[in-house]
Amino acid sequence: MTYCLGLCLDQGLVFASDSRTNAGVDYVTTYSKMHVFTPTPDRFFVLLSAGNLATTQEVVNHVQRDLDYPAGGPNLANVRYLFEAAEYVGAVSLAVQKEHSDALAQSGVSGETTLLIGGQIAGQPHGLMMIYPQGNYVSPTELAPFVQIGEQKYGKPILDRIIQSDTELETVARCGLVSMDSTMRSNAGVGPPIELMMFRAGAYGAHTHIVYQEDDPYLREIREAWAENLRLAFERLPAITLPPKVRLVDH
Amino acid sequence: MTYCLGLCLDQGLVFASDSRTNAGVDYVTTYSKMHVFTPTPDRFFVLLSAGNLATTQEVVNHVQRDLDYPAGGPNLANVRYLFEAAEYVGAVSLAVQKEHSDALAQSGVSGETTLLIGGQIAGQPHGLMMIYPQGNYVSPTELAPFVQIGEQKYGKPILDRIIQSDTELETVARCGLVSMDSTMRSNAGVGPPIELMMFRAGAYGAHTHIVYQEDDPYLREIREAWAENLRLAFERLPAITLPPKVRLVDH
Repeated sequence: MTYCLGLCLDQGLVFASDSRTNAGVDYVTTYSKMHVFTPTPDRFFVLLSAGNLATTQEVVNHVQRDLDYPAGGPNLANVRYLFEAAEYVGAVSLAVQKEHSDALAQSGVSGETTLLIGGQIAGQPHGLMMIYPQGNYVSPTELAPFVQIGEQKYGKPILDRIIQSDTELETVARCGLVSMDSTMRSNAGVGPPIELMMFRAGAYGAHTHIVYQEDDPYLREIREAWAENLRLAFERLPAITLPPKVRLVDH
Repeated sequence: MTYCLGLCLDQGLVFASDSRTNAGVDYVTTYSKMHVFTPTPDRFFVLLSAGNLATTQEVVNHVQRDLDYPAGGPNLANVRYLFEAAEYVGAVSLAVQKEHSDALAQSGVSGETTLLIGGQIAGQPHGLMMIYPQGNYVSPTELAPFVQIGEQKYGKPILDRIIQSDTELETVARCGLVSMDSTMRSNAGVGPPIELMMFRAGAYGAHTHIVYQEDDPYLREIREAWAENLRLAFERLPAITLPPKVRLVDH
């Protein structure tokens, strides 16, 4: 399993991802799911992935090869809009899946991968897109300025309550870590290291990429503080009162 | 969609269920998913359901008919253990599904239903079981003393943090409402009225059954207080600090 999160705010972009990969419960390992591309000084892309690891690695390799050996087609150095980057990566993903689809189908394995791409090209607004396994894509809206891939449900309630498009980047990043922590607590298939990426709109090359190991003091501090604060938040709720139309049954 | 929750504590049992039923987004209606059976003064059963509504209604009807017209087979008045009740209801559920399976398969519709049964028979401890569509069942454990059916993920993190088998019934019920509220907020397929049931072990006929309408003042109060307390819990978290091995990239 995987949990990746991308947030598109007024101030910029925030990404968070876990690093656990498993092929069944008896083969669990660790791979980074966050890939950064800065092909020219005035453009910046982050790619996150949830799905078949072989497909994802081949997509990342082909995207990098297209930068190293441009062959006249689209690549991350020549696309003019972020949506062109999404269309290009979607096409690469679909081609990789098709290449192996017959063999994978015979083994009953899905080669699908869902991707997040975010970033900025000079002269364009920053943005974020989720690329479906079929190669098409959607953007989040200002009203719900984030997209999640993989195990998304456990970590969504806190995002729904805290994140708005004008929320400060640091606050958003903190909320992303809480969302990740809630997911790790409820799904053992999501695990550390946790990667966090903050990109301020217009900063292009400059971005903050933090890799939190399992025993990182801040990760532990925020986890313990959140558990304690949640307990207090719950304890301070009003006690149950019976509504007027209560059916109190006593035979 | 549906969200039903059963909790088995030292002090007794708590159940919560929503009432939204939908066959596609264009046919949304309201049905109670909580069914109480007190066939004799010294036994008490609650049945909750998530799945095909027709299957569920037929199961409930057959269980009641077996009480009204005993035919020598098992029913809720003559089972000796709670697990026998689970086996009996599981068999009824499987028979109902089989009865319609050919016709449903032709329409591409699933007739499956997952059930929760909880209660107590005099002389036996109180208990709780989840009955799979296949008719078999599992009980929660002391370490994780609850079972959820339907849309379970959004409402699980708060249960994981608050509920222990020695938690007070009223606190458990309040936590169940918060879990239900989180689920309703993130999944429009889960909706009011919300039913809450508290059963104190050994009380048999006596139980508290509360039906909260959407505009219920307490439901609104707890929803607003929880949203506010969660916001405060988040705001009081320590600000992000960079770990020693941070990769702060500035090209």
